[in-house]
Amino acid sequence: MSAALPRPSAGPAHTGAFGARLRRMGIDSGSAALLYLAADSPACTVHGFATGSKAEIVVGARSVVAQVNLVAPALLPEGEAGLSETAWRRLRVPEGSMAQIAAAPPARSFALVRAKIYGQELDREAAGAIVGEIAHGLYSDIEIASFITACAGGSLKVGEVAALTAGMVQAGQRLAWPRAPVVDKHCVGGLPGNRTTLLVVPIVAACGLLIPKTSSRAITSPAGTADAMETLAPVTLDLAQMRRVVEREGGCIVWGGAVQLSPADDVLIRVARPLDFDGDASLVSSVLSKKVAAGSTHVVIDIPVGPSAKVRTAAAATSLIRLFHVVSLHFGLTLRMIETDGSQPVGRGIGPALEAHDALAVLRGLPAAPADLRRRALMLAGEVLELGGKAAPGAGLAMARGALDSGAAWRKFEAICEAQGGLRTPPVAGFRQEWCASRAGRVIAVDNRRLARVAKQAGAPLDAVAGVEFGAPLGTAVSRGQPLFTVHAASPGALARAMDYLHIHQDIVVIGEAP
Amino acid sequence: MSAALPRPSAGPAHTGAFGARLRRMGIDSGSAALLYLAADSPACTVHGFATGSKAEIVVGARSVVAQVNLVAPALLPEGEAGLSETAWRRLRVPEGSMAQIAAAPPARSFALVRAKIYGQELDREAAGAIVGEIAHGLYSDIEIASFITACAGGSLKVGEVAALTAGMVQAGQRLAWPRAPVVDKHCVGGLPGNRTTLLVVPIVAACGLLIPKTSSRAITSPAGTADAMETLAPVTLDLAQMRRVVEREGGCIVWGGAVQLSPADDVLIRVARPLDFDGDASLVSSVLSKKVAAGSTHVVIDIPVGPSAKVRTAAAATSLIRLFHVVSLHFGLTLRMIETDGSQPVGRGIGPALEAHDALAVLRGLPAAPADLRRRALMLAGEVLELGGKAAPGAGLAMARGALDSGAAWRKFEAICEAQGGLRTPPVAGFRQEWCASRAGRVIAVDNRRLARVAKQAGAPLDAVAGVEFGAPLGTAVSRGQPLFTVHAASPGALARAMDYLHIHQDIVVIGEAP
Repeated sequence: MSAALPRPSAGPAHTGAFGARLRRMGIDSGSAALLYLAADSPACTVHGFATGSKAEIVVGARSVVAQVNLVAPALLPEGEAGLSETAWRRLRVPEGSMAQIAAAPPARSFALVRAKIYGQELDREAAGAIVGEIAHGLYSDIEIASFITACAGGSLKVGEVAALTAGMVQAGQRLAWPRAPVVDKHCVGGLPGNRTTLLVVPIVAACGLLIPKTSSRAITSPAGTADAMETLAPVTLDLAQMRRVVEREGGCIVWGGAVQLSPADDVLIRVARPLDFDGDASLVSSVLSKKVAAGSTHVVIDIPVGPSAKVRTAAAATSLIRLFHVVSLHFGLTLRMIETDGSQPVGRGIGPALEAHDALAVLRGLPAAPADLRRRALMLAGEVLELGGKAAPGAGLAMARGALDSGAAWRKFEAICEAQGGLRTPPVAGFRQEWCASRAGRVIAVDNRRLARVAKQAGAPLDAVAGVEFGAPLGTAVSRGQPLFTVHAASPGALARAMDYLHIHQDIVVIGEAP
Repeated sequence: MSAALPRPSAGPAHTGAFGARLRRMGIDSGSAALLYLAADSPACTVHGFATGSKAEIVVGARSVVAQVNLVAPALLPEGEAGLSETAWRRLRVPEGSMAQIAAAPPARSFALVRAKIYGQELDREAAGAIVGEIAHGLYSDIEIASFITACAGGSLKVGEVAALTAGMVQAGQRLAWPRAPVVDKHCVGGLPGNRTTLLVVPIVAACGLLIPKTSSRAITSPAGTADAMETLAPVTLDLAQMRRVVEREGGCIVWGGAVQLSPADDVLIRVARPLDFDGDASLVSSVLSKKVAAGSTHVVIDIPVGPSAKVRTAAAATSLIRLFHVVSLHFGLTLRMIETDGSQPVGRGIGPALEAHDALAVLRGLPAAPADLRRRALMLAGEVLELGGKAAPGAGLAMARGALDSGAAWRKFEAICEAQGGLRTPPVAGFRQEWCASRAGRVIAVDNRRLARVAKQAGAPLDAVAGVEFGAPLGTAVSRGQPLFTVHAASPGALARAMDYLHIHQDIVVIGEAP
């Protein structure tokens, strides 16, 4: 038997690519990169592009994949193609650049996502193909959402999590450093205000260990470390810039998305954020892929446990710790997992700028600095110093305290900020409103999730100034009408939305009988 | 214990809504309805709207929910807000209308999707809440994709499929008819060109049964019945118009999306289409929710079975038929399931206009009319006539043949088209190319899926003229160089894409030794 063949008189082959001058449309389309094409342009009438087509836009050595939106001819001069802000940021070429535009290859690996949904296990090859195409921009947001859902709800086995982690490392850059150990510290999150990274990095670097820290932006929380750090210094550094900072100062705090370490992770996070999924598998693969890609050898992982933290029970912590350990074995990482108190917020601020203000107060040794944040940061820094072999077992905490109290950590933090582009003062919100106790008594519970939700309703993390300034830790004796926390917002509308939410959820801070 | 309460001096309550003049932006954003707001407008600075916010846009009694994209102030005059084409079509108000715009309530039911992903069963209440919010436009595309994925891969039990079906019925209109039975006919799809509905409806209506048919547009295929019918007559009728057609002619063929029967189904389809998911659960809930909502009492379901059809094996057909039967019991529907030959395309055309031409030829009794399409349509119409009690058992086929051969069915079809807004002639493609046999022999296999893919690469169903004209059914003796099929397209680019695909997949029509 034999296959059919084309008629020889088939005419010229399809070339596909066409040229267009690029225009920045000034439209913020969110996570999806969009290409705007005039509906009457040859791109559509000759090359067959339609809304929903995927196009690869190439300018010299730079390229981006974007989804097509057709627009009325009046919106685009002839010969021009428009980019959304996201596409524009990813492509990074001058306005008016000539681009070659062609149909992007379809996301061939989506068949592997379908296979996973139908029960096939995800192996390294499949995970590598899927994550590689996601990192390359070939997946649409709904394809990414489908993949995230297929991996959620405990549907991945340990081997699949390791495969996913390996795929994520492989999709991006991987750093190597001239000396070892390379230490890191990571908090799995879920505890509002727990911004210890801004303290641990300068303390550890001041003590002489190499700590090239890359951080995420918020996933489902009101602030990620990168969001908070950004109110203090630039965090969008490229790999060469990051390397220079680390070589000079021994540490950095930069946004992982910009340095292309595990680049798929940030794509996944942008889509996962509004879905509010937080499974062990995605958490472990996200964290470990960043650590492996960053060249880390020794990592302390902070796991806050509490009824409204991300990890709610000791059993959940045990299962998460086991998954971290087993997967880390695939990559030769040395992990130390620390379960910490996750019953209430840490520090006072919840939101990018508010958390930065807290960290600054601790670094500067101000009397009003939040004691709980200081205590946690010193403990974690001590663990890192011990795990990295800089301090003898049991001597890490004292070494960390020395670096903080001597001002060495603050000087190191200033130096890191300067090296990243300059230290700046975090902004302050223009609109604030207090929320007060309905009765006298003692604070007996705090709902972290809903408190975080208030900060998000107020605009965090997109509005850096937005959030909650919390003033009622567990055990606080309060009188009726005493402020429990203050909502900060960048607009009256956002402030009102947060207050609306509070009127529906009035029991975020629970007050019991005075003892 | 007691909850905290707001400080009495909290200031005015949040009003939220603001007014804006609506502008049609001329941007086709695909399935998502978008609202464009100037980044410096009070909507953003005062009311806190940002890219990704969901807004409800209200003009009098009409409203639409859309996702916000912030745009550069130059793109929108002060006081105006822009709508994407999808939002514009859904809202249907004059350009320049004054709208009230407010933050849309969040999709509260997404927590129930998360619960499903984590293993909780979907009950009627959860399904009703989810599907209701999807129908109301409160889910983003990625939330819909997540829900679709959570329901894919055989993860729904029978009770959950029934719950989903009930939720889909409840989310929309439900028709009642003055007489019974109300019959219907549905093909589960997967067989290119199987456009029997365009024949069964006029035959059955000509015989006096009530057959108010609503059809879908293509999900993953090159053409849905609504797409093909639209090349012959308007299909976007509202409920009152549909009712008038059915009351006058006893039947209709309209697009289900426009009459708001199971409106969530079309939203789901728009997102599911590019994911190419086709599970039993979504199929059964989609089909039965439409039938229940349309007021059908007796339904014949055509299930083509073949190695490259949607249902590939007898076992798969058995399991699908069982699910159809069990779920139909929840709604008092009488079903008759017919397994048919799914080994090759039916008729000659694959694509909206090409399939319409085939149906016309059969209705008019032209000598060149595809005999296989005629045969299947007569068989199915006979089953409907028997199931609906119009023909005695065994006498349905003869009654159907009589209606077709006498010209009664053709007159009924003309009358239905006139009642729907006027019969028109399907268009013909401007660009065509043949694909020829590489050797002499006999056709021994046809890959339906890839043949459908060729039609899609050529632009179907968005380009109504695009598709494949198939001329080599199983068993056909061919000589070397003889055309096997012709690709039709609306542009040279689309034609070239289809030919590119063919060059990679040359074995769609397999030719064996001549006997």
